[in-house]
Amino acid sequence: MQKITSEKRATQNETVLWQHSHDESYHHPVSPDVVVYPISSDEISSILKFANENKIPVVPYGAGSSLEGHCIPVKGGITLNFQEMTEVLEIRPDDFLVKVQPGVTRTQLNLALKKFGLFFPVDPGADATIGGMAATNASGTTSVKYGIMRDQVRNLQVVLADGQIIQTGGMAAKSSAGYHLTSMFVGSEGTLGIFTEITLKVYGIPEAVLAARCTFPSVQTAVEAASAVLGSGTGIARMELVDERSIVQVNHNSDTAYTEAPTLFLEFQGNPASVTYEASLTKELLESFGGLEWVEEHDSKARAKLWEARHHLAYAFKHGYPGKSMMFTDVCLPLSELSGAIVHARETMDEVGVPGAVLGHVGDGNFHAILMYDGSILEEREKADLVNARIVDYALQKGGTCTGEHGVGIGKAKYLAKEHADTLPIMLAIKKQLDPNDILNPGKIIL
Amino acid sequence: MQKITSEKRATQNETVLWQHSHDESYHHPVSPDVVVYPISSDEISSILKFANENKIPVVPYGAGSSLEGHCIPVKGGITLNFQEMTEVLEIRPDDFLVKVQPGVTRTQLNLALKKFGLFFPVDPGADATIGGMAATNASGTTSVKYGIMRDQVRNLQVVLADGQIIQTGGMAAKSSAGYHLTSMFVGSEGTLGIFTEITLKVYGIPEAVLAARCTFPSVQTAVEAASAVLGSGTGIARMELVDERSIVQVNHNSDTAYTEAPTLFLEFQGNPASVTYEASLTKELLESFGGLEWVEEHDSKARAKLWEARHHLAYAFKHGYPGKSMMFTDVCLPLSELSGAIVHARETMDEVGVPGAVLGHVGDGNFHAILMYDGSILEEREKADLVNARIVDYALQKGGTCTGEHGVGIGKAKYLAKEHADTLPIMLAIKKQLDPNDILNPGKIIL
Repeated sequence: MQKITSEKRATQNETVLWQHSHDESYHHPVSPDVVVYPISSDEISSILKFANENKIPVVPYGAGSSLEGHCIPVKGGITLNFQEMTEVLEIRPDDFLVKVQPGVTRTQLNLALKKFGLFFPVDPGADATIGGMAATNASGTTSVKYGIMRDQVRNLQVVLADGQIIQTGGMAAKSSAGYHLTSMFVGSEGTLGIFTEITLKVYGIPEAVLAARCTFPSVQTAVEAASAVLGSGTGIARMELVDERSIVQVNHNSDTAYTEAPTLFLEFQGNPASVTYEASLTKELLESFGGLEWVEEHDSKARAKLWEARHHLAYAFKHGYPGKSMMFTDVCLPLSELSGAIVHARETMDEVGVPGAVLGHVGDGNFHAILMYDGSILEEREKADLVNARIVDYALQKGGTCTGEHGVGIGKAKYLAKEHADTLPIMLAIKKQLDPNDILNPGKIIL
Repeated sequence: MQKITSEKRATQNETVLWQHSHDESYHHPVSPDVVVYPISSDEISSILKFANENKIPVVPYGAGSSLEGHCIPVKGGITLNFQEMTEVLEIRPDDFLVKVQPGVTRTQLNLALKKFGLFFPVDPGADATIGGMAATNASGTTSVKYGIMRDQVRNLQVVLADGQIIQTGGMAAKSSAGYHLTSMFVGSEGTLGIFTEITLKVYGIPEAVLAARCTFPSVQTAVEAASAVLGSGTGIARMELVDERSIVQVNHNSDTAYTEAPTLFLEFQGNPASVTYEASLTKELLESFGGLEWVEEHDSKARAKLWEARHHLAYAFKHGYPGKSMMFTDVCLPLSELSGAIVHARETMDEVGVPGAVLGHVGDGNFHAILMYDGSILEEREKADLVNARIVDYALQKGGTCTGEHGVGIGKAKYLAKEHADTLPIMLAIKKQLDPNDILNPGKIIL
């Protein structure tokens, strides 16, 4: 390996190997045999050629914020850490495009875009890398307005298993030129190729932003109200549900004193006239569905605090249950099935006896149950697994998906086989075609 | 064949075969051997099993409005006409979803949705079938706001070459569950499978709509102004450029008396406050870029007339040049390259001596040159081909695509090989995997 890269950028130091043995998920850590910090697509091409000839697994590693074990090298081999590939390569403000290396993080990208009056909207909470976000088709709080990662990726430079470097797309806003491989590579979780350059759509920073929160007597009324907002055609930019017990946890772990009731967190973005109009329309609508306490946050600090509380919810639970592991469910359902699914999830957690949060990107029909359990006690882990399985089964029965945004990784592979039993052979055929030696992130997506 | 379908729904009548020998494109007609009017996915499954065993080509046929020869059975065989599969199967207003059979047309769908306060926005001009629109990844005038077909298709029921019936997606608004096959099938032009059910995202009918047109001293200033509008973040719903000679043709063929200058046709959709705000902001912006004559159309009849003029431009040229053939170019470029490309196109047409229109979906960077030529004179056809090739070369050099929305079909296959030389082998491998006997719309996309 040191013949291909430089000696400094390939290491077998035990501490470094251990650092790359896990991500933010609950999955069992496995160390790679070597960690490499590549600096170019040509170098990655050489590494893959070598790995492919010698049938050595290669696992890409961004910020390590995966919640499904994507970065865990379950079969050992080479971990490619992208911390030396963090350049914003090109900003084309007139084309609303940016080209980045995979190690660029979301906040780093937004810092670079800011001086052009532009921003990148996808916000999964964690400060993930763009490479990781593209690989898992991440989304988060803003997708109700801006869409998911797959909607933003215009082109990928990909190094294939045999070392070949390809471009999957182009810079045009739309194309009907053949099978849409860009969409296939986005969300392929490092199993079809390694992304080395990513061209993304960006957006003008909105003139006006207004955040608000509104409490409800129950989760059902909150979800019904959220559906009505979507139906009204109001251009909502974020709409998040946090349940009562999660608000308790937030207040407990930060300096907030939010009313402890099921709450919708909302944001409006646009021009001043439309933002004001939309907020007042939404307030009225939410109140007609039982909305109790509507609080607007106009200044940017108060807004930041509100979204911080929402984003740090997982950490609030982590701190509230020291030493415990967290399992995230990630189902997404048709909107009309969401409130039933959330109620079912909370009831299942209570029935099985697993504490945790329920929170959701209700604008998309996506919600997470954060399940807290003691990883050292088998029975607790089995309980969490049971809750996860029941939540997924419910979602699949209602036309939903086992993963809205976290990806399949390790934990959802058994559910993918249920959800897409009839297309799994096609996925497998594509995988075999592109990676016949199964060196690219083996043990993920397809079991 | 008559064993599989009923006698009535399979025909070798010469007139019917001739009707299915061509579409709206300039490509050479070829008749199928038999035309079948299937009524179900099970029946199509039986037909494909039979065709696959006997290596007989199968070509799907919707409204026949393709501009790239998609419906032409270049190798004969069976044409599947979907005129008996025109049911709107399910409308789920609370989920903003509709499930249709492939033969449903765009206007038929919108009629069915209207009573729920919903509409389907993708508008390619022609009253195409939803099956055809999904197969070619169509878009049109509204994609600057709503996106293209690929953005709307949530799930496809597909019959594969061997007769197997699969579901590619689900009903959730987003999913990270494995390789995104729905996106791969959308735009596959009948070469990977036959769509038998299509689940689409739909939208609430906007409260307020305002159309406007604005003339400019030149095409360049019009495109620069359009780019500025996009940069302003104004939520424009349509923004179309029609050049001076096209306006002359429109006035000549309809009862309009539009000022004969390069013109932007615009539309705003939303709530009354934002529509008014956006229109006034846009007017100001366009005027600062040299916009001359701004005319708003508030009532729905005047609006319809304005868009009719735009949509009927191709027919205006057809009537203006009786007996001549039309070739459509369809390049799409990064926005900053659009004005140069349009000027280059017009200059090339003048230089080579091919009359016609230049019009564009400027919000997407997509434009068409409509090239008029006498199909019976080889030299005229060669001239049109030359103009097309030069326009495509220019676009590819600037990071654009050879087809923004019409698809590859027959006419763009040679350009696809240039645009995606490095991914064409992957496309071919997928095609061979899914259709090893090359029975599905052979001779399209990949040469």
